[in-house]
Formats: sequence, structure tokens, C-alpha cells
Amino acid sequence: PPLEIDYSIISKTITNNAIALRERALSDNLSVDIVESLTTEVGPRRMGTDGDQRAISWALEKFKELGFDRFWTEEVLLDRGWVRGEAKAEILSPYPHNIVMTALGYSVGTNGDLVGEIVEFKTFAELEALPEGNNLKGKIAFVSYSMSDFKPQPGQPLMGGYSEGTKARSRGHVTAAKRGAEALIIRSVGTDNNRYAHTGSGYGYEEGVKRIPAAAISAPDAILIQNILKRETPVIMKMNMTSEITGPKKGANIIGEITGREHSDQYLVLGAHIDSWDEGTGALDDGAGVGAMMAAAAFIGQMENRPKRSLRVLLFAGEEIGLYGVNDYLKKHKDALGKHVLGAEADGGGGRVHTLIPGVGSTALLVINEMHKLIAPLGIVLSEENNAKGGSDMGVLGEAGMPALNFSQNSNDYFKYHHTPNDTFDKIIAEDMRYLTAAYSTIFYLAAEMPVDFRQ
Amino acid sequence: PPLEIDYSIISKTITNNAIALRERALSDNLSVDIVESLTTEVGPRRMGTDGDQRAISWALEKFKELGFDRFWTEEVLLDRGWVRGEAKAEILSPYPHNIVMTALGYSVGTNGDLVGEIVEFKTFAELEALPEGNNLKGKIAFVSYSMSDFKPQPGQPLMGGYSEGTKARSRGHVTAAKRGAEALIIRSVGTDNNRYAHTGSGYGYEEGVKRIPAAAISAPDAILIQNILKRETPVIMKMNMTSEITGPKKGANIIGEITGREHSDQYLVLGAHIDSWDEGTGALDDGAGVGAMMAAAAFIGQMENRPKRSLRVLLFAGEEIGLYGVNDYLKKHKDALGKHVLGAEADGGGGRVHTLIPGVGSTALLVINEMHKLIAPLGIVLSEENNAKGGSDMGVLGEAGMPALNFSQNSNDYFKYHHTPNDTFDKIIAEDMRYLTAAYSTIFYLAAEMPVDFRQ
Repeated sequence: PPLEIDYSIISKTITNNAIALRERALSDNLSVDIVESLTTEVGPRRMGTDGDQRAISWALEKFKELGFDRFWTEEVLLDRGWVRGEAKAEILSPYPHNIVMTALGYSVGTNGDLVGEIVEFKTFAELEALPEGNNLKGKIAFVSYSMSDFKPQPGQPLMGGYSEGTKARSRGHVTAAKRGAEALIIRSVGTDNNRYAHTGSGYGYEEGVKRIPAAAISAPDAILIQNILKRETPVIMKMNMTSEITGPKKGANIIGEITGREHSDQYLVLGAHIDSWDEGTGALDDGAGVGAMMAAAAFIGQMENRPKRSLRVLLFAGEEIGLYGVNDYLKKHKDALGKHVLGAEADGGGGRVHTLIPGVGSTALLVINEMHKLIAPLGIVLSEENNAKGGSDMGVLGEAGMPALNFSQNSNDYFKYHHTPNDTFDKIIAEDMRYLTAAYSTIFYLAAEMPVDFRQ
Repeated sequence: PPLEIDYSIISKTITNNAIALRERALSDNLSVDIVESLTTEVGPRRMGTDGDQRAISWALEKFKELGFDRFWTEEVLLDRGWVRGEAKAEILSPYPHNIVMTALGYSVGTNGDLVGEIVEFKTFAELEALPEGNNLKGKIAFVSYSMSDFKPQPGQPLMGGYSEGTKARSRGHVTAAKRGAEALIIRSVGTDNNRYAHTGSGYGYEEGVKRIPAAAISAPDAILIQNILKRETPVIMKMNMTSEITGPKKGANIIGEITGREHSDQYLVLGAHIDSWDEGTGALDDGAGVGAMMAAAAFIGQMENRPKRSLRVLLFAGEEIGLYGVNDYLKKHKDALGKHVLGAEADGGGGRVHTLIPGVGSTALLVINEMHKLIAPLGIVLSEENNAKGGSDMGVLGEAGMPALNFSQNSNDYFKYHHTPNDTFDKIIAEDMRYLTAAYSTIFYLAAEMPVDFRQ
């Protein structure tokens, strides 16, 4: 029999408020305007850069303007800074070609021109399978794996292609160095065929292993090199990267609060990360998340009454370069983690949510079921799984025991643009952003208002 | 009543041959392989550069390999060379931003840093409407016209947005200089929102008018600047371009011939241009044309018998920078223009042909009607107009009196990628290229075989 809304769980007043809130979010462009403001007035904001400092001032100003009750920063230390510098590459032979390349985060530079023969590995596993030693001495290791080639098996996550691609991105330089390579290049981890390289984070260098430069090249250039290699002739590349690891830097988590009218010390946490990679203006990654979360909480704050519990918008520092912000937040707020009622993070671009995945206690699941019905008209289904950790930064709090939700989004565009110069405001689709914001505001209003223990 | 093929016009043997040829072209990847070879082994080939010289050798070798009966070059002089150099730009205030910029062809450099306030003009007409004088003294004129905004009126060509955009691209720097501007920037003439600038050709400088630098910026950056300007605050930009006009250079038209078995001195001419802009590898513009025309003629040449008339594949020099090759060809072959039976050029990317537009005598039109039926299965309609000039370079010969055909193609992708670093081989869709090649080979085989005077 069809399920019916059980008004003993969600009162008619709260239901009506939630519907009104959802409809307002669908018709109000606030989330889009916030992304426009952040990308226009701040732009790139990698942690430890001037842009990051401007972003912090911007966010505090925006929280104020949006009528948040409290807003503050919590300083986060970054053990090392990094200057991207320039990255130039060209094929010297058999045919001269410029190659579009960008350094992977926290790579060292080449210290002048580095010339070597390219040796292709189709996957990270293939590179790993090569015995350690001097096999790649004088060579440039090239992992040509394409994220788009990933065909998920039953039960595998759709994002498996991204996970597979990030193996070489995060560990390839150490693995290649152990085999004697002079440098690592990878095909960009993305789904587009634009001639941009997608940057991203490495996991740093390993003690006792040579620190070799690591870079991504664009998909068209990866295909070009593969096509030359098919001619069974050595491909010699010259690269020059002026990246540099520098001393420690400071950043901050930025927190804005709508204070609850009854349980002000119980927090619903809406996460996004304030930092972005440095080549685009960080519109999809994660301007969209910042816009959706700030707007969702602001809409709730602008209702007639404050919700029963507090809402906290957490804008994390340094997600892209290793979850610096959330780890600091957890350390500072460990004792209050039990007061973090439920959390979710928006970090999948500006596309619409298609699936809500809960990660709550079994009793609370019944309530999530009812709450979901109020966002079902947005085209959102409820997953049968109950293992969400909150995504991105928030997943750290989820793993530490905080109940969480994951809002799975359409991320078709996200993996075309993210981590490239192409991640700019024009990629934001306003209607989709309003849908996204409607989903977050509706669910978090309900969760803040209802007397549910999501741990139970 | 439905039209029937009149076999008194096209014999059954020729019809069958044409169908066999069409089907072969649909199943043979030769045109794609040629584009792969040109873009991989040569790459960028702006006239007057080393790449252009490599392209000439490549083309002669390819004609040989494909079994053409004759192939040769005809030297073409270029009155001035050009070095692109680097183009860097940044917004200094009110918010610091890097801007993706590229020099327009044959622009002078900035001679160090050039700093100025940006003054926006929505269209070239708006810039022109400003009286000449010192109104733009110290300023950077910015024409923000977007090709995508063009809404064709009844009777206007679909490509009107491109024509409109190229006004500022070709004449904007002179117009802006006459009003005192220090530099011209335009929104790229293209339909994409990728963060690339589309280069393209200016018409050169005017005697007695200050030679100011001219550059295109990417669509996302044009939008960014417009969004800052909405805040009604001066936008100050710094640009640095090291472009340089140099001395004369040499290039060549490259001609490959399948010699006719009866009228070897009558030519069907299949045109494309060998040169490309210098930032991509010229896959769509005009590798696709080179591939389609070489393959179409090669397929005809590989039939059991040579066709009655000769086929000439004309690969023109210097189309992008001012039709150098075709003008030289016309000068050299003026006396033989009457022997040029019919011509067409492929210079619209790798998309499928949707419309065949003739430009022939009224009697010949009846034959074109019958010929068209053999390519109608490729999804091609016959235009009711009869005014084609052959397109691009070939249009110069068409204007001089040569009968011509235009094959209108799906160019949706073309205007996203052309003149940018993104014009690379991966953008070629193999099946579409086979359709394109099938259309050219079928029509040109018929035209070479049939005793028609296309001038009548």
C-alpha cells in the first residue's frame, strides 16, 4: 500500500512551513548570487594564498549581510605553503608539440629543464607492478588512465572512475620515483576533452624517496602522446615547472550560526569548503556548495521563528589540499561532537540532487523517511542504504560518530570543469542551484525543528 | 508526384559506381586517419612558421601514398610574418583576477606592461558610434558582443553571429585607435563557454592610425568583467603581449591530381586550407577539410577507371591570415579558369553536410538535381538557392566565374573549438567524417564523369 505521511511524526505546521520554505528556495536566486559574489569579488582561494584571506573576510561579511545570529573564524594552521609557478612542456621528438600541463598540488619544480623519454602505463596498477629499482632511470612515467573509461560493475560506486584516477594523482610520484623515474605525468582526472589539465592534490613525498615533479596533462595531449607512441618511436618530452614548497601558512574555518530557539547548543551542520584550486574561480568546486549552504541556512533564518535547534554553516579551510579545516574543527570541538545532531556537505557542483542517502540510527530512519517525502517533489529518491558519512570534509565528523546525510547530485558537469581554469561562474545553472538549495533548506529545517535523536 | 531518377541524365553504370563509392566512403576511415596523421605528425601550421613547412612535406608525401597521379607545390609569398609571443592579462582592481587572453593575428605587442581602464561597448557599432578623437585616451576598449546572442531574422544567414563578431575582430583595433584607445580587447568570437580565447585575423593596421594591440579574451572572463562593471566601479586591467610583426615569409599551395581519362585538362577542384591557427593542432579548422578532400579524391582515384575529367585537390596556403594561397592560385591560373569545371571547399569542421547549395548555370541545375538524389540518403537536402561560390578560399574562384557548390555542414562544434588550443584531433567524430567524405566523393565523381557544362 502507498505510504502516507504520518502527521504524528511531522506536524501540519512544520510540514506547511517546510513546503513554504522549499517553494521560496525554488524561486529565490540567493544561492546563485552568493556564488557570483564569491567568484567575482574573491576568485581563486587556495588555502594559504591571498585569495584565501580575502575569502575569509568575504564570508564574514556575507554571514552578516544574510542575518546570521553569530559568525566567527577559527584559525587553522597549514604546515607548508606552495607556489604553483609555471608549468611548460613540449614534445621534442619525433614531432614538436606544445603540451598543456599543470603541476599537481605540492609538487616540487623541475629545477630547470627536465628532458626524458615518456614511458606509458595504462593504469596506476601497471606502474605499481613494475619492480622497484632503476627501470625508469632517466624516464618520465606517464599514467594514461582515463576516468571516462571506467565501467562500474554491479555494486561499484559510479564515481569509481574518479577514485581510480586519483590513485596515480595522489601516489603516482612516489611510486614512479621508487622505480627511478625523473618525473610523473598523468592524464587529467576528469571527464572532458578540453585542453586543460586538471590539477589536484598529491599525498606529499615519502621520507627517503627522491622528490620528483608530478604534473597532469590535458586529455587531448594525453591522446596525442598515445597516438605518437602507437608509431613505436621514442617520445622525448621537455618539461619545466617552477613549483615550490614554502613555509607554514594560516587559514581559517568560517562558521555562521542561526541560533536555535530551544536547543541552542544542538547543531545541525551544513558544510562546504571555502578553499578552491587556484586556476579557476572555484564556482562549482566549491562555490556552489558555499552558495547552497549559506542560502539554505539564511532562508531558514529568515522564517518567522528560529528553528528549535541551531544551524551551523561550516565553511572549511583547506579541503583540496588535505582536509586541514575539518581535522582542526574536530580537534577543537571533539567534546561537543555529541551536540552535532546531523550533518551534510555540498561539494558536488551546482547540479540537482537525485538521491538522499541517510546515515542515521534505525529509529531516526523512520523520520528521515517522512522528511524525504517533502523533498520528493524535487525529483529526489531515498536510497535504501543507510551508511552516509556526510561527504568531503564532513565525512571526518561522520566517521567520528556524527549522524549524516549525503545528497548525491548530478555531477556530469562537475568532473568536466573541476580543478581547471574552466571552473568559473558561467558554468552555474541557476535553476539547478535553486533546486539544490531547496533540498538542503527543507531537510535541515525539518531536522532542526523535530525532536529526533538521529543517533538512535 | 515523387521525382524519379532520369537515367537518360545519369547512366546506370555511373549511378551504380557512385553508390558503390558512397558506401565505401561510409565504411572507410581514411579521412579520419588523414586528420590524425596531419594533427599528430605536423600539428599547428600557421603560414610562415616551421609547422607550415612541415605540413607541405607531409601533404606531398600523403598525396604520393594515396596514389595521386600528380602532386606539386606552387610557392606563395607572404608579405609579413608574425610571432604570437605571450599574452598575459590581469585585472588589478577592484578585484585581482587573471584573464585568459590571446593576441589577434598580426597584432603588435604592448611593448611592456599596458595598464588601462576598461570601457565596454556591447557591439562594434556602439564603438563606431563614439566620435573620433580622444574619448578613449588611456583606456582599453572592450567589445563584449557574444556570437551566441545572435538571433537570426528571417532571411538572415545562420552564421550571422559569426559575421557580426568578426567585425570587431577585424576592424576593432583601428576603430578604437581612432578614438584614442591604448588597446582593443574583444570577447572571443565563438559559441562555447570554455576559458580559452579564440584568436583570428585582423585586417592589419591603417596608415596614419596608431597601431594599438588587439586581443581576444575568453567568454568566462568577458562575463566576469561585465559582472564587475555592473558594480559600477572602474575596472583596471594590465596586459602584456609580446607579439611582433616580422619580415616576409614563404609558403605554398599544395596540389594533388587524379588525372582524367578523357579530359585531363578539365578540373573538378576540391579545396581545403593547409594552414591553421597556431594554438590547437587545427583538427577541425581545417584538418577535417584536408582529410575529407584528400580521401574523397583518393577513393575516386582507386576506382577501376579514372573519371573522365581530372580532379584537383587544392590545399591552400594562408587562408586564416588573408586568403594568400587562393589569390596566388587565381593569379597563376587565371587563363585556365575556364577549365575549372566546378569547385567546392570543405572548411566547416568534421560535421555532417545537411544542405547542398549549387552555384551553376540553369541547365546544369537539372543535373545537380539528379546528382543530389545520390547523396540524399546521407541526409542532405538540396537548397532552392543557386548562388554558391564555393566557400572560404574557393569563393575567390567562384566570384571569378567558376561554377561552385557549397556543402553546408553541422558546425555546432566548429564554433566552440576553432581558433583555440582546443581544436585537436579528439574533437573529430569518425562517423560524421565518413558521411562528410561520402558526400564529397559521390558528387565529385558524378561531376567528373558526366558531360555537363556547369556554366550553362
